[in-house]
Amino acid sequence: MRKPRYLRMMDAGPAWAALRAAVRVAEPRAEEEIPVEAAAGRIAAAPVHAAMSSPSFQAAAMDGFAVRAADTEEASEAHPIRLALDRAARPIDTGDPIPDGFDAVVKIEDVQIPEGSGEIEITRALVPWHNVRLVGEDIIQGDMIVARGRRITPFDLGALLSAGLTTVRVRRRPRVVLLPTGDEIVEPGSARARARGAIIEFNTRMLAGMVEEWGGEPVRLAPIRDDPAALEAAVRAALAHADCVVVNAGSSAGADDYTPDVIGRVGRLLVHGVNLMPGKPTVLGVTSDGRALLGLPGYPVSCVVAAERFLAPLLAHLLGTAAPVRERVRALLARKTASKIGHEEVVRVQLARVGERYVAHPLGRGAGIITSLTRAAGLLGIDALSEGLSAGSEVEVELLRPRAEVDRTLLHVGSHDLALDLLADLLPARSLVSVHVGSIGGLVALGHGLCHFAGTHLIDPESGDYNLAYVRRYAGGRAVTLVELVRRQQGLIVAPGNPLGLRGLGDLVRPGVRFVNRQRGAGTRLLLDLRLAQAGLDAGAIAGYQREEPTHMAVAVAVQAEAADAGLGVQAAARALGLDFVPLEWERYDLALPTEELAGLGDLVDLVRSDTFRAAATGLGGYDPGQSGRIVAQLAPS
Amino acid sequence: MRKPRYLRMMDAGPAWAALRAAVRVAEPRAEEEIPVEAAAGRIAAAPVHAAMSSPSFQAAAMDGFAVRAADTEEASEAHPIRLALDRAARPIDTGDPIPDGFDAVVKIEDVQIPEGSGEIEITRALVPWHNVRLVGEDIIQGDMIVARGRRITPFDLGALLSAGLTTVRVRRRPRVVLLPTGDEIVEPGSARARARGAIIEFNTRMLAGMVEEWGGEPVRLAPIRDDPAALEAAVRAALAHADCVVVNAGSSAGADDYTPDVIGRVGRLLVHGVNLMPGKPTVLGVTSDGRALLGLPGYPVSCVVAAERFLAPLLAHLLGTAAPVRERVRALLARKTASKIGHEEVVRVQLARVGERYVAHPLGRGAGIITSLTRAAGLLGIDALSEGLSAGSEVEVELLRPRAEVDRTLLHVGSHDLALDLLADLLPARSLVSVHVGSIGGLVALGHGLCHFAGTHLIDPESGDYNLAYVRRYAGGRAVTLVELVRRQQGLIVAPGNPLGLRGLGDLVRPGVRFVNRQRGAGTRLLLDLRLAQAGLDAGAIAGYQREEPTHMAVAVAVQAEAADAGLGVQAAARALGLDFVPLEWERYDLALPTEELAGLGDLVDLVRSDTFRAAATGLGGYDPGQSGRIVAQLAPS
Repeated sequence: MRKPRYLRMMDAGPAWAALRAAVRVAEPRAEEEIPVEAAAGRIAAAPVHAAMSSPSFQAAAMDGFAVRAADTEEASEAHPIRLALDRAARPIDTGDPIPDGFDAVVKIEDVQIPEGSGEIEITRALVPWHNVRLVGEDIIQGDMIVARGRRITPFDLGALLSAGLTTVRVRRRPRVVLLPTGDEIVEPGSARARARGAIIEFNTRMLAGMVEEWGGEPVRLAPIRDDPAALEAAVRAALAHADCVVVNAGSSAGADDYTPDVIGRVGRLLVHGVNLMPGKPTVLGVTSDGRALLGLPGYPVSCVVAAERFLAPLLAHLLGTAAPVRERVRALLARKTASKIGHEEVVRVQLARVGERYVAHPLGRGAGIITSLTRAAGLLGIDALSEGLSAGSEVEVELLRPRAEVDRTLLHVGSHDLALDLLADLLPARSLVSVHVGSIGGLVALGHGLCHFAGTHLIDPESGDYNLAYVRRYAGGRAVTLVELVRRQQGLIVAPGNPLGLRGLGDLVRPGVRFVNRQRGAGTRLLLDLRLAQAGLDAGAIAGYQREEPTHMAVAVAVQAEAADAGLGVQAAARALGLDFVPLEWERYDLALPTEELAGLGDLVDLVRSDTFRAAATGLGGYDPGQSGRIVAQLAPS
Repeated sequence: MRKPRYLRMMDAGPAWAALRAAVRVAEPRAEEEIPVEAAAGRIAAAPVHAAMSSPSFQAAAMDGFAVRAADTEEASEAHPIRLALDRAARPIDTGDPIPDGFDAVVKIEDVQIPEGSGEIEITRALVPWHNVRLVGEDIIQGDMIVARGRRITPFDLGALLSAGLTTVRVRRRPRVVLLPTGDEIVEPGSARARARGAIIEFNTRMLAGMVEEWGGEPVRLAPIRDDPAALEAAVRAALAHADCVVVNAGSSAGADDYTPDVIGRVGRLLVHGVNLMPGKPTVLGVTSDGRALLGLPGYPVSCVVAAERFLAPLLAHLLGTAAPVRERVRALLARKTASKIGHEEVVRVQLARVGERYVAHPLGRGAGIITSLTRAAGLLGIDALSEGLSAGSEVEVELLRPRAEVDRTLLHVGSHDLALDLLADLLPARSLVSVHVGSIGGLVALGHGLCHFAGTHLIDPESGDYNLAYVRRYAGGRAVTLVELVRRQQGLIVAPGNPLGLRGLGDLVRPGVRFVNRQRGAGTRLLLDLRLAQAGLDAGAIAGYQREEPTHMAVAVAVQAEAADAGLGVQAAARALGLDFVPLEWERYDLALPTEELAGLGDLVDLVRSDTFRAAATGLGGYDPGQSGRIVAQLAPS
């Protein structure tokens, strides 16, 4: 077994420069002639000149009568003149050609038609070509309608057709062959998709969508097994019809990572390993005739980040366009975000407009967490020379979602609860996103204006009541209204059939019982610690007390996966995974809302009070929405 | 012939509100199940929950060895422990399943493999699940992967496939039937496309592209003649398979405008005429079962503006999404822009970043000028209560092109010359756009920092030299470098064969000779007036001296269309339209560049000096690029 060794580590900027310099772009670029009607989004291969003028004839610009301007010279309010219909005045509609010998149009509103006279009466002199659209008013034959290299818009289709063109020469879309590789990779929906050790192939499906957005033509092939000869043969075969081959993955430096070697054998290896996180195991190479060979990482977020960094500009380079650039906003960073010096880093962030500013909450950093991308509204780059960013920094965030959608996003920070998913689904006009940092973290964020509202279920050891004391302690600087979201049952989440026969917290100290805990600051952790103390139980005696998971569902999944025997959580989490549940007690989960923002959160509160929400919450199991929406307290700032 | 009468004029806001209220949206919306791989860009019809967790098994997060954490408890740098290969340590690669009974992974970098020992050596204790990706680390079975109403991204495809889903329920794309109407309308490429009075159908082609961008499914039909019965039958037939029918045009109030009546007969007429410019002749109606019937204006810009105002939000409403919103920038308005009170107006603007700010130059306002849309980089809305905007106002502009492209745009304001099109085509990395306001207008704009450079050819009556005196007079506040673009021949543009036998300016005063002039402030106009004065000719005696066109090409087209017999202009314009040319004199056309910006304009100056540009200029005819790129003068600010 060899140790990992990246053959040619480089920073991302020089890595792209090396690839760009080595890739050969045909001049002129390959092109094709296609119908104008199919050209939206394509890149013009050459300047397009009008084949004819538009309008191509002198036309009426108004509804009225075509006349000769010379005939109207004497007309005035005081001395109207009359023109004989047909001979000197012809009825005409907007867009009709001006009859030969006529040179102006009088608007229908500006004439009188004395009944039975066969004439019209005009009270104003016209200059030649008055109310006439002249030939070429819009487009003159020979005008450049579309510049070389322009991305053709739907409006351009109009101008091209109007200028008498029915086809247009566009740059051929670069063909990108996507080649998944790996013994563990199985196709979605195949019989093996649920087998242990199988990984469903989806990276090349994402890449295909991205390549299309970037103007390329993706071709996906079936997965190749981890066999260097088979992989080399597949890459060589793909080159028969590819402008670029992307191998995914095998690009790291493990025992079965053949991609760098294969790319080195088929062409020339330029880069193996990039100082980019995620995205490090990236391979860049080039064939002897200058076509790019990419090896992208297997972890999906690494794959996406590396593709955006290298494949997007490559396609733009091949097409002769600028690389795509996303809209950016300045935002306040909600949490300290450390970064490794020497590595450029791409952090996925949740984003919302809170008051007058955007607030960015970093999401999970794991390269394997595809949901950190799907849940993200933006990307935050941290450059290689930075050790990271402190909380409260002003940062620039690239938007992954339309800005208008970000502006409509309602941001919850706090404790995780399944009823929040119901709110997110049922809130009609807004996106609701949740950052799960536990109840105390949510109240702190609320106090600092880093979210729209916080969900909290913190029991006060002294009073036994929920939340009020904690709001005063952690968000006391603001006026806060506490609204009850729901009551819910906490208990032990255990394997189906409760094989260890657990009945209560006392059983957690039994030998052989493996517990899975929640993180400090979580309401459920606080509840556990309080009840353990009240029962005189020693937390240190519980196996697994140190193992912390951030949500009820993560606790449940640890039990489902047999990595633990029990965890404290809500019934709905157990039910969602087909696990058993030992109910212990009911607790109240409240929403803490800034009182001065209550009016803007009316839709949320209305939803919490609605029958729709109550029915859905009841359906989760272990939830009592009988008092949902009740105002628990309004707390003045301390 | 009846006078125009809009039946139900409304402001745009209330008009949309009326349509929105009358349209019936099925609840739940019509949906369909499609493969995940085809779902990018579609709208999720329901919340999508994970069918399985991801990872679906405990997997190695690193390349190394699977071990039991309990076996490593005693390991330290001082006291390494050894684990037997196979029994206590199994080689494992990233992503491989953790073998039964094992619960941690030690990285390959962190072990020694004493040769021939059959063991590995570890110097650090591991906690359980160290370097293990736990089941559900990314996605937990039952998690909501995609919220109802979300537009599915390529990243979402990854999450959906990873969660074990192969199909997804999405909202059916609303089907929009596009029905062109008008006796004068002909299909592109048809034999009649060049006939006098024919108008090439292109509005529904643009609309089809727009409907696709907005998530609808466009269906284009063949044009219907101006016959109310035929139109009514076509609309009724279209309704058999449409969620919305768009008739284009016949929506105004002329004799052949049947659309409002037809929509009123097929359904209920809600709106006829909107206080929107362009876009006034818009018809909105609804069928008895709540499907929208739209009549859009025939002028292409009106058609686009009305579609953006009514069809885009309608599709969003039918899909249950928010209407699309474009990125906006604050810009300085370069020119006074009047507007009619009581009408909301949409002005197309050219846009560039000049220094630290964006500058917006309004384009032609004509509703028939499709090129005012294709040339525009942005849209500027003027509300109904405004009389217009003064020059220098700060305005908000909606971007029609990517902001990065606007940031790369080089803005020329000044005299029109065909060699500028060559520069635009040959400048590799930037978009060059031109605003044609004549030489003096360009120098004034340069003086005010409203452009990157100005093109000028102004003869000084006193010295007979070009441009220097004018730069001092109109742009004297800045240091300016004059660079020669080209010499070009001015002369009379006349009909093929020069049927009137014109030889010089003296012939323009001959009876029966119809002249077409350039606007005041244009260099060509100045030249004409100077030479007329020098020759003692009376401008008032020239028929058509009052008729002004803004470019050489517009002058040439007036001659081509037989609306004039002669105009003063460059040879290339005559040649482009197959006209004859009577050469009169050579003149110099210079580029005026701000001296402090010269470095940033180096690519432009290099291009002017290149053989490529010189060859292309020579090819135009009547151009002498022998001294192109020469620095004529560097003028200090006065």
